[in-house]
Amino acid sequence: MSTIADVAARAGVSKATASRALSGNGYVSDGTRQRVADAAAALHYVAHSSAISLATGRTQTVGLIMPPVDRWFFSELLAGVQDALFARDYELALYGIREGTDTRERLFDTVLPRRRFDGIIAVGIQPSAHELERLQRSQRPLVSIGPYSEGSSAVSIDDVAAARIATEHLIELGHADIAFVGGSTDADTLSFGDARRVEGYLEALRAAGLTARARLVEAPTTMPGGYGAAVELLGDRRHRPTAIVGVCDEAAIGAMIAARRLGIAVPTELSVVGIDDHQHAAMFSLTTIRQSPREQGQEAVRLLHARIAQPDAPLERVVPASALVVRSSTTAPRS
Amino acid sequence: MSTIADVAARAGVSKATASRALSGNGYVSDGTRQRVADAAAALHYVAHSSAISLATGRTQTVGLIMPPVDRWFFSELLAGVQDALFARDYELALYGIREGTDTRERLFDTVLPRRRFDGIIAVGIQPSAHELERLQRSQRPLVSIGPYSEGSSAVSIDDVAAARIATEHLIELGHADIAFVGGSTDADTLSFGDARRVEGYLEALRAAGLTARARLVEAPTTMPGGYGAAVELLGDRRHRPTAIVGVCDEAAIGAMIAARRLGIAVPTELSVVGIDDHQHAAMFSLTTIRQSPREQGQEAVRLLHARIAQPDAPLERVVPASALVVRSSTTAPRS
Repeated sequence: MSTIADVAARAGVSKATASRALSGNGYVSDGTRQRVADAAAALHYVAHSSAISLATGRTQTVGLIMPPVDRWFFSELLAGVQDALFARDYELALYGIREGTDTRERLFDTVLPRRRFDGIIAVGIQPSAHELERLQRSQRPLVSIGPYSEGSSAVSIDDVAAARIATEHLIELGHADIAFVGGSTDADTLSFGDARRVEGYLEALRAAGLTARARLVEAPTTMPGGYGAAVELLGDRRHRPTAIVGVCDEAAIGAMIAARRLGIAVPTELSVVGIDDHQHAAMFSLTTIRQSPREQGQEAVRLLHARIAQPDAPLERVVPASALVVRSSTTAPRS
Repeated sequence: MSTIADVAARAGVSKATASRALSGNGYVSDGTRQRVADAAAALHYVAHSSAISLATGRTQTVGLIMPPVDRWFFSELLAGVQDALFARDYELALYGIREGTDTRERLFDTVLPRRRFDGIIAVGIQPSAHELERLQRSQRPLVSIGPYSEGSSAVSIDDVAAARIATEHLIELGHADIAFVGGSTDADTLSFGDARRVEGYLEALRAAGLTARARLVEAPTTMPGGYGAAVELLGDRRHRPTAIVGVCDEAAIGAMIAARRLGIAVPTELSVVGIDDHQHAAMFSLTTIRQSPREQGQEAVRLLHARIAQPDAPLERVVPASALVVRSSTTAPRS
């Protein structure tokens, strides 16, 4: 295998110059850079990342800590992070987090401290004080997506506003019996974003004097979760709500499927609104609040890159816009 | 920050012994290993992965090359790979592949060769001869999931058999007008697995003397893809098939949703069968062929780990079982 010395000799420059030219760190004229690149290509020279890393102190690696990518939001986010890292020539080291497993402890106490990153992006997790201390001990920039952590830049939509706008849309159409599907009343299992969406729903009801008619049905934030909750809600004809707000589009779509199975027409007998603008929302003609997790992933990389370049730059919090998209799953209630 | 010398001094051993104890490479007595571990813990000593890597030649990192994780199959697979790597103390470096972008060229020519891995898992891609040569030049073990590559161990269900069993199930119920939704007749855009599923469908028809009634509707292998294809198929009442085989559950579920929208009852007027046993298959009561991508991901890590431990071990090909799961989306045709 060729060495940097071989490349330098072939290009007629010193090893230090060849190294500068290939790593992109330090000044080299364009002509020299090209000569070195040509020599490296001719010799199939490949700089080892471990060696570059020890030499420069940079790993060109970003650690991404996130929940299982089995939901639209996380898969879109991952795609956005991947694209943006690849464009900036960063490697992506992926770490999964699952609640209720001891892997989380091992991840923060053993695995992450051992690795050197240029920065870390944490998605949808609320690190404990101990975990945060662990993350910050590495003194690498941290950007969070979703729940906000002290000492990090962050990207997160305004979940309260998203759910409030969704609920207000139904109130404006004339609905008064509006149920919320997919939250949890157990603080331990309720995610940060979901809790804020429940808050937004209740806020809208309160402003309209409808607090007494609030109905919150706990359910996993998934399509089957929304389906199950809707079956529960819609089973009793006399106490059926005229509209449902889903904690996310997956829950809302699950509710629509349940309604169809029960012979309840959407939107004439039941209006349904979601939050996300999921890839399947248009197929189900679902009225929803649009957000772009892909753009949020790209934005997180931009924030992280800025802090890697300038570690003492001020922290930034980015709140992407979310907008109501009206399709045909919502209409005025009958009678 | 503490160094290995600090740890060695505190434990009363040489630097070389401390290094052996912490890396797990080479013999150290249990008592010494514990003393060194205690000293490292007391000093918050963290071995840098770059240094370990240069010292041992091992990176404890596995590269995973895969398409966007926006489909159930890939997200489950990723979860399986993550779990199995984490359990074996490997890091995961994730590389996305998207067809039709020049990132693929950059990935194989520049990014991957620069990185040192202990091994690579390639998912759902058929590397070109040039790409394969690039991968193999690194002389690291390669395991593929899905399409098989020369010189690699592989995990892949028998796609031909899966589609054949799904189609035979419909034939046994008495169906003769069976359409296949979600393949492509363009070899360039047809994935390896999808092509094999089309093959299995045609094989079953051929064996039943139904070749002349084969109908293949091209569509993306997604829920909206299946929806669109089904609208096309079901629009003309006189030439409507009595059954549909989806290239995957997502396509099959899309077809079911289209049928309901068009007022065609499943299964009495239309039987639908898929392949996957997707997380939503049970909710839609979809008859399908079950496979477990999560287990396939775990299996791939097992194969890779075996080859890392013993590089000259024989290549293995694992073909996980797939089984028919009959739910209520299929029944005998009317009349």
